[in-house]
Amino acid sequence: MERIIAEKIAKDMREISVAEFFEKNKHFLGYENPTKSLVTVVKEALDNSLDAAEEAGILPEIYISVKQIGVDRFKVKVEDNGPGIVESKVPFAFGKLLFGSKFHKLKQTRGIMGVGIHGAVLYSQLTTGKPTKVITSTGKDIHIFELMIDVAKNEPIVISHKKESNPKKWHGVKIEMEVEGRYVEKGQSVLEYIKQTAIANPHAHIIFDGPNGKVEFKRATNELPKQPKEIKPHPYGIELGILRRMLANTKTRNLVSFLTTEFCRVGKKSAEQICKLAKIEFNRKPQDLTHEESERLHKAMQMVKLIAPPTDCLSPLPENWILEGLKKEIKAEYFVAVTRQPTVYRGNPFQVSVGLAYGGELPNEEAIKLLRFANKIPLLYHQSDCAITEAVSEVDWRRYGLQQSTGSLPVGPLVILVHFASVWVPFTSEGKQAIANYPEIVKEIKLALQDAGRKLATYIRQKRKARERFLRRQIFERYVPEVAKALAKLTNKDYKVILKKLEEMIKKKVDLVEEKGEEENENFKKTEKTTLKEVVENERNEKEA
Amino acid sequence: MERIIAEKIAKDMREISVAEFFEKNKHFLGYENPTKSLVTVVKEALDNSLDAAEEAGILPEIYISVKQIGVDRFKVKVEDNGPGIVESKVPFAFGKLLFGSKFHKLKQTRGIMGVGIHGAVLYSQLTTGKPTKVITSTGKDIHIFELMIDVAKNEPIVISHKKESNPKKWHGVKIEMEVEGRYVEKGQSVLEYIKQTAIANPHAHIIFDGPNGKVEFKRATNELPKQPKEIKPHPYGIELGILRRMLANTKTRNLVSFLTTEFCRVGKKSAEQICKLAKIEFNRKPQDLTHEESERLHKAMQMVKLIAPPTDCLSPLPENWILEGLKKEIKAEYFVAVTRQPTVYRGNPFQVSVGLAYGGELPNEEAIKLLRFANKIPLLYHQSDCAITEAVSEVDWRRYGLQQSTGSLPVGPLVILVHFASVWVPFTSEGKQAIANYPEIVKEIKLALQDAGRKLATYIRQKRKARERFLRRQIFERYVPEVAKALAKLTNKDYKVILKKLEEMIKKKVDLVEEKGEEENENFKKTEKTTLKEVVENERNEKEA
Repeated sequence: MERIIAEKIAKDMREISVAEFFEKNKHFLGYENPTKSLVTVVKEALDNSLDAAEEAGILPEIYISVKQIGVDRFKVKVEDNGPGIVESKVPFAFGKLLFGSKFHKLKQTRGIMGVGIHGAVLYSQLTTGKPTKVITSTGKDIHIFELMIDVAKNEPIVISHKKESNPKKWHGVKIEMEVEGRYVEKGQSVLEYIKQTAIANPHAHIIFDGPNGKVEFKRATNELPKQPKEIKPHPYGIELGILRRMLANTKTRNLVSFLTTEFCRVGKKSAEQICKLAKIEFNRKPQDLTHEESERLHKAMQMVKLIAPPTDCLSPLPENWILEGLKKEIKAEYFVAVTRQPTVYRGNPFQVSVGLAYGGELPNEEAIKLLRFANKIPLLYHQSDCAITEAVSEVDWRRYGLQQSTGSLPVGPLVILVHFASVWVPFTSEGKQAIANYPEIVKEIKLALQDAGRKLATYIRQKRKARERFLRRQIFERYVPEVAKALAKLTNKDYKVILKKLEEMIKKKVDLVEEKGEEENENFKKTEKTTLKEVVENERNEKEA
Repeated sequence: MERIIAEKIAKDMREISVAEFFEKNKHFLGYENPTKSLVTVVKEALDNSLDAAEEAGILPEIYISVKQIGVDRFKVKVEDNGPGIVESKVPFAFGKLLFGSKFHKLKQTRGIMGVGIHGAVLYSQLTTGKPTKVITSTGKDIHIFELMIDVAKNEPIVISHKKESNPKKWHGVKIEMEVEGRYVEKGQSVLEYIKQTAIANPHAHIIFDGPNGKVEFKRATNELPKQPKEIKPHPYGIELGILRRMLANTKTRNLVSFLTTEFCRVGKKSAEQICKLAKIEFNRKPQDLTHEESERLHKAMQMVKLIAPPTDCLSPLPENWILEGLKKEIKAEYFVAVTRQPTVYRGNPFQVSVGLAYGGELPNEEAIKLLRFANKIPLLYHQSDCAITEAVSEVDWRRYGLQQSTGSLPVGPLVILVHFASVWVPFTSEGKQAIANYPEIVKEIKLALQDAGRKLATYIRQKRKARERFLRRQIFERYVPEVAKALAKLTNKDYKVILKKLEEMIKKKVDLVEEKGEEENENFKKTEKTTLKEVVENERNEKEA
């Protein structure tokens, strides 16, 4: 009986292609509903374009077009001025999932999984049955492909391939696809995704030609971001299973050379020390190690004191970029940016930057707005599930002058930007919408937020003081004519002379106070005028209400 | 220049094996930290065992052992009495990701992805370098395997394979692995996972031999759960891309027979109607349809009126199972269970059940405890990201007598159990910890919660009334001796006689009220005694404080 059932089950067992897997689980890749799907398609193409330009040291020029062609159908085009893709690789780069150049590297890039743009191609053919058009050139001929994916095999199908001459030496990639979707402009939307991308990539010039017309995101700096470098793994972050694979596959001929060649921060001395601790001879062939030896080696690698991995491999968001990005897009009165020193989780270097925009036209009584970024890509969805959100909620913002119920996002006129840069971002899912909450990461984000929070608190305190000073002066000024009148009567002197003298006296006193205020904070001074105006108006409104 | 960079990138492009992909992204599969990883390993083995027993119609006997063998290392063994696995399939069933019998079926099972137990094997070898031992028999010989995964190729490596005789005709699977982990017993833990599994699977007998000793979860029913049936896709849930693939691969020879054979709920009449609407002849060969024709066919399939898919394919949690499960594990005073009628999202039938446990020893001032299940497996993690949590938060629990701030989980002495049964559960990630929030699903869960909530509200209302009655009686009783004394003085009658009469009068009145109360609610009556005791004590404590 059991045998029969077991045989029946055995007959049903078969391989699942990774394309089938993600077709059925397309929501893993961000294709959960028509609105989000349209955002994801644009996101994947845009992220790839920025990565390609960055790798080639080109200032990105990106044109995105999203046009409605049916009730729930859109034509999406994304064109970049990157280095283009070599023609022989085009079918795989777009038509085979788990194929790419970035997965096997330890390097800070936007894409990394090998399922991004392929997922968009898959989604397009699933919902519209249409092939994806890819036009590309590396400066030589222009190649025009129509591609689909053989889902059962996870292999590309080239529907057509044409070659054209390229007299203008154009280079880049242009992708065109038809997809099912819904277009919105509020909240989590294509426009918001591009806008946030522009904040984190002020060196990019992006034109978005959407269903409601063109929007241009101008370049705010001609400076290219720092080129991230590829690094080797650090011994502290390596898992035993990976070490064993590296030992089996290495081309090095002895253990010391294996350790110094395949890892970063391991010199000859450290390598020898590791071998000694593991009780294995220096010149053993890596391939010959027994299981017990490799386990001892692994332990020894964690015990030896080594310098942290190099952090020049990271390309964080510079503070001036954060400030410019925020000022460009958010109407606030006070801005501050903080970038932490790079640090390490599980052998992976990472670096956190934070920006705050406060006051101005931001709403007073709502939860703050949180802008999350990882390797310069915006994270629009799954906010509640992200290490960044956790860090923001754990900081005590009441100490910095905001309202907050314990464990929640604070309430007040504040935008918080957090950028996480790493050679390996632990996204919670393939859709790259949230960062897994490793304690080391949450801690580092909190420290950056607290640093920025203290600066904000100084500003808020001074603003409150200024308001109090202003109200005091206002009270004086209100009674000056009365007092002058009374003094004129008592002393029989000229009312106008007394009034003038009194006014001068108050002005002097107030100026003195204001000067002190000036010393206290420069930033504050710059915005004080509008602040005071607001204060008066608020005061009036409150009284009238 | 661009050509050189493009060629450099092209050279780096290569295929990523799905095992490499999940090794690097092991947190997608639930291996985020040592504590969660240990839970996930047990979970994958336990889910598989329950599925196998269910498929074979066997009452499950499961033995789980978790023993610490190093600082952060555990030996995990899981043994079941299922039908076992045919020996030729063992290496693939455990040593090749994306391999399985459940992925291509529309059937309600616990596993479905083809990355569960393989993920555990991968995690084990990654963290300890050790092979996984699988012992299995279908009642004939016993086969003992030691397996690893060739990660770069995603292929199984059979380290050893032995055969033993099986005089006792044992059948089942026994899996043994060494993993890195951390063992806790509070909150999200191995114990909690098994406990919740026992609640949703009262037909299973589970023995857990953990680091702190044995815990037995006895069988609460000998009734096997309803066998879920496999169904064919419903035309309303089919995507265009899938339809095109089905057209290309079908063995049927004309469109009408294609539609009636490959889909559920399509008879000859409906099939002809679909063809007419699509303007395609009945007898066209499915393989010959043009792109435009298949698109017309797809549209027509959505337009024709069809019966909803059959729902006898579902195996929901029966209400008596929910009540028994909750009563067994939770010390509350009031229990209620509701099972909705099956319904459909995107062509997939699903069914929601809800159970509530209220009062008793549950804490008054904490957020309610939420137990989430999908196809009888507990969802321990990612609560904030789950359709169930969203539904619970969106219900207005203040109407049912609980505290709640808008959009949050309610506060009060309540445990909420929600079970989601479907042929296809849209988990948010491979780790199967949360259900994606499709509006149809959230709506259905809310309706079930509201139904149960109304019943709870009746109980809470009556409990409050009883409390008021009791207090009233108490007041009377407190003043009876005084009043009797006064009356005795005034009337010159015997104090004792008056006291007795007064007491009788009050008793009569109160009894009358209590009788009414009895009519109002049976459930309430049963627990009234303890309730009233509590009321008195609370009253006293409050006064003393």
